Amino acid sequence: MLMNIFFDIDDTLFPSSEFSALARKNALNAMIAIGLDCEYQKLNDLLLSLIKEKGSNYPNHFNDLCKILNANEPAKFVAAAVAAYHHTKSSIAPYPQIPKTLLRLKDDGHHIYVATNGDSVKQWDKLIRLGLALYFDNVFISEEVGVEKSPEFYSKILKSLNVEPSQCVMIGDREDADIVPAKKVGMKTIRILKGKHSHTPSTADFTIEELGNLYQIMQHL
Amino acid sequence: MLMNIFFDIDDTLFPSSEFSALARKNALNAMIAIGLDCEYQKLNDLLLSLIKEKGSNYPNHFNDLCKILNANEPAKFVAAAVAAYHHTKSSIAPYPQIPKTLLRLKDDGHHIYVATNGDSVKQWDKLIRLGLALYFDNVFISEEVGVEKSPEFYSKILKSLNVEPSQCVMIGDREDADIVPAKKVGMKTIRILKGKHSHTPSTADFTIEELGNLYQIMQHL
Repeated sequence: MLMNIFFDIDDTLFPSSEFSALARKNALNAMIAIGLDCEYQKLNDLLLSLIKEKGSNYPNHFNDLCKILNANEPAKFVAAAVAAYHHTKSSIAPYPQIPKTLLRLKDDGHHIYVATNGDSVKQWDKLIRLGLALYFDNVFISEEVGVEKSPEFYSKILKSLNVEPSQCVMIGDREDADIVPAKKVGMKTIRILKGKHSHTPSTADFTIEELGNLYQIMQHL
Repeated sequence: MLMNIFFDIDDTLFPSSEFSALARKNALNAMIAIGLDCEYQKLNDLLLSLIKEKGSNYPNHFNDLCKILNANEPAKFVAAAVAAYHHTKSSIAPYPQIPKTLLRLKDDGHHIYVATNGDSVKQWDKLIRLGLALYFDNVFISEEVGVEKSPEFYSKILKSLNVEPSQCVMIGDREDADIVPAKKVGMKTIRILKGKHSHTPSTADFTIEELGNLYQIMQHL
């Protein structure tokens, strides 16, 4: 049966958690390389507690870090951190089996879409840097849909495509955002066990460790 | 005589005007590559008029461009443009003779500094990406000095270093920001004929086309 397949982005199309951790590490090392007098471990602990307190989308983590450390010339350290962070973040690549899997699904006649939470420009930026932006029939981002992933989010996008839930599959790494609300509206669900949420128990129809044989699973749906 | 030598950044240490033009070109081509239905020449004319109207530091040129063109999915085009723009801007390199010239001046016993207009983090970002951030004895940026390049700017930094104007040389590409106000406080001046201002008449003590033989000029100061 030809299906409408919806993919989450982070930790589904590429190892987002790994890249974020590497970007933070490279940023802190760049601050030290340019002369910040602080041990890596202490810097990392401070940064993690700032991220916990302010959220990961807060734009001034490195500024705050300099304030806490009372650093002279904070602009120098912020610039070094941001340059290293963005340099790492701009070299993201998809899980190696993703491009050929997506092309195979399209060849088989399925429609493929992105369904993701987040800021529109940031999520498009990821698809562009991953080299996947032109693969999808459509891209649904919560900022544009008007609501975060929830039964309402999925209802709205299915309605806009004029498709039945039973003809749709949601694929993602998160039980709370990708699986539970998609099931609630009647979509089929596939949970990919990647990233920091991989140990949460799954209620999805299928769980997989790699997306490489997704087109085989599609024959069972 | 051992001197305090102050360098401007843009179009003095690296070809800033060329990189900006290339970054804009790559950004517009990325918008077209991702599906924007508009000719390059028309896009470029629109962008240049937006830059003229809003200034080059305005952060929403590409958003405005999408609005003018009534583009569907503007986030996609903005993300493509910004990614290509930053990718180009992050590959800046110094004029090839700069690193060895700076090291030679330091070896000869001169002190070298940066004196630049602009936002602190942005200007540090350039020094870091150019690989030059650790070369200088100190970096003076208008945002931190509290005033743009002017007689007051130069007086303040000379005072903070406790040096006489006659022991100082300012090197830059701009007559208005680098040469005239530095001369006014009694510094020596060297005008480098690079970038879009290279045809403005010069009143500097020396004009040079390349910084490669700067350490020879230093013997005449």
